Amino acid sequence: MTHTTRELRSTITAEGELRLTIEDVELSPPGPDEVVVRVEGAPINPSDLASLLGPADPATLTVDRSGERPVTTATIPPQYLGAVKARIGKSLAMGNEGAGTVVDAGENARHLIGKVVSAAAGRMYTEHRVVRGADLLVFPEGITPKQAASAFVNPMTALGMLSTMRLEGHTALVHTAAASNLGQMLTKLCVEEGVDLVNVVRSAEQGALLSDLGAQYVVNSNDDDFREQLTSAIDATGATLAFDAVGGGPLAGRIVAAMEAALVAKTPPIGPYGSPVHKQVYVYGRLDPSPTTVPPGVGMAWGVGGWLLTYHLARIGAEATNELRARVVDGITTTFASSYTAEISLTEALEPDVIRAYARRATGEKYLITP
Amino acid sequence: MTHTTRELRSTITAEGELRLTIEDVELSPPGPDEVVVRVEGAPINPSDLASLLGPADPATLTVDRSGERPVTTATIPPQYLGAVKARIGKSLAMGNEGAGTVVDAGENARHLIGKVVSAAAGRMYTEHRVVRGADLLVFPEGITPKQAASAFVNPMTALGMLSTMRLEGHTALVHTAAASNLGQMLTKLCVEEGVDLVNVVRSAEQGALLSDLGAQYVVNSNDDDFREQLTSAIDATGATLAFDAVGGGPLAGRIVAAMEAALVAKTPPIGPYGSPVHKQVYVYGRLDPSPTTVPPGVGMAWGVGGWLLTYHLARIGAEATNELRARVVDGITTTFASSYTAEISLTEALEPDVIRAYARRATGEKYLITP
Repeated sequence: MTHTTRELRSTITAEGELRLTIEDVELSPPGPDEVVVRVEGAPINPSDLASLLGPADPATLTVDRSGERPVTTATIPPQYLGAVKARIGKSLAMGNEGAGTVVDAGENARHLIGKVVSAAAGRMYTEHRVVRGADLLVFPEGITPKQAASAFVNPMTALGMLSTMRLEGHTALVHTAAASNLGQMLTKLCVEEGVDLVNVVRSAEQGALLSDLGAQYVVNSNDDDFREQLTSAIDATGATLAFDAVGGGPLAGRIVAAMEAALVAKTPPIGPYGSPVHKQVYVYGRLDPSPTTVPPGVGMAWGVGGWLLTYHLARIGAEATNELRARVVDGITTTFASSYTAEISLTEALEPDVIRAYARRATGEKYLITP
Repeated sequence: MTHTTRELRSTITAEGELRLTIEDVELSPPGPDEVVVRVEGAPINPSDLASLLGPADPATLTVDRSGERPVTTATIPPQYLGAVKARIGKSLAMGNEGAGTVVDAGENARHLIGKVVSAAAGRMYTEHRVVRGADLLVFPEGITPKQAASAFVNPMTALGMLSTMRLEGHTALVHTAAASNLGQMLTKLCVEEGVDLVNVVRSAEQGALLSDLGAQYVVNSNDDDFREQLTSAIDATGATLAFDAVGGGPLAGRIVAAMEAALVAKTPPIGPYGSPVHKQVYVYGRLDPSPTTVPPGVGMAWGVGGWLLTYHLARIGAEATNELRARVVDGITTTFASSYTAEISLTEALEPDVIRAYARRATGEKYLITP
């Protein structure tokens, strides 16, 4: 049985135009180990936005409704075109993750028909998607596709952060942009596991939200005494690892400096090299596109660097990855539950006003595409 | 047999005064495994300056010659006093490394008497030093103490950089402040080992000096087309690791960005995460005390962090460390030879004008104390 699908595509032209379209695609029948998933929910994560919109200027978004289907365009500022040259002229399917129901399967995967499953197979902003059965998370009776839609990116990132912490010998951690969907999940996970977490938020309301989830350490980067709050929370928890979604500006460096200040206050070093305890900040997002800065006075045992879930999973290997995935299935309605600001159709996802709303990346907001 | 010695001391007072003095010390007789070294040469490395002068302002240096021995003082700016509070009131002996002749020994170390040895035992700015025989490098007949004086810090750092490169899976490297004594040594070592090295210098003269030593890749950070030169040299060598002595300012970040640009040009990534190849810059000095900055556009596989020889040697362990030490002995008059701007006595090392000269850290300049 063959299936057709409509899928969302993003193209950047050599002239610097972003084009968002909906294309018809004829799917090949599933192979012996493959299934056809009817996608019923696929979230728009920050990592999706980077591919979907590229460096387009949202102010220039416009839609042409003269054809059978809308075509949305926007302008890429010329100085950013070089950064995306590898994708110029390529019509790229979108959507890192999503969930739905298995509606067809090859001979070795027929037991999956009717199951609610999720996948992080890419091109999930589509009605139907052919996926290898082995790449699915299969959910028990009673879990809906909407509940299962965000089962990979955020849950595995939260688990990956704790896995990194243990692998690299730290015992507590700091998280910035901590009131995000991911941050809320990490808070719940750390409460469950008894891991001390210092949450860096930007408002008292965000702090209250996390405290309601059981967060013990919340510091506000907009408070005048932020550095003292941060150093004191780091001192109390012994955190020497941070995950930073802000990326640019002074925040990552301030965290390293606060860790060093807490360590030096505890064990004053005689020599000029500061504390010998390694302090690490991983930048996993770049809400602030300005340069990352690290001040002097952080000693010699420090590191700041990029962190990407896929690199981490490659590092820990398939078996450890599968253990994390099994934990997500167990906790999909509790620890790893996501909530959504709005549900939108594929066509609505091309509306300039809707794009500007989901592209804002407002803290705690998250959109779900229901194809 | 007991020995007395005169040693150079550095003290910071609670009032923010740096005091450099020469003190008489009665040495205990050597234990069964110890020797007494008559120190005949001890270099002033940048790492010594950090302890010797701390954050004192060199412009405030003054000497009091009214007593039997000179006492040199300088002012620590109040804002820096917190950073050195662990050493306040402590009279610290100085000098990380040095060499001399064994003049006395305990019963198990008598075979070392008369040998030229070097040690990185600390408090080497002294006439006599008691050291464990096992901690010495022992040089063959014909090597002078002056030749052996800088056998640890720079040679082991150069070897440690190559050892880090191999341990972390890189095949070529970038070095900044490349015309320094250490940089010249690293150039010779890389020529010998056939490792591609990109030397970042600040003048054409510095570049010529390295080219004379066989350097193939020299780029000048004061040239208008520095970024293009750097990216092109990184592309030619495949360097994904750098050691940066400048530390502050944009240089470390520019190196990461150049590595990313070279990688992306070779294998353009379709997705928004840049090249998956890890790019690493280790900051091992801070000639520039301003914040270290890393621009956006470096992908997600990058790291910038501190690097200290002692941490690296602890990481590779005693056996690997001893292999490196043996290589230094073999190459002390060739690959690992040092030259000195001037030789100064302990008393001269307290003269304000002399201090200002050796504290300048001018490229390629190095002073030797001959106690």
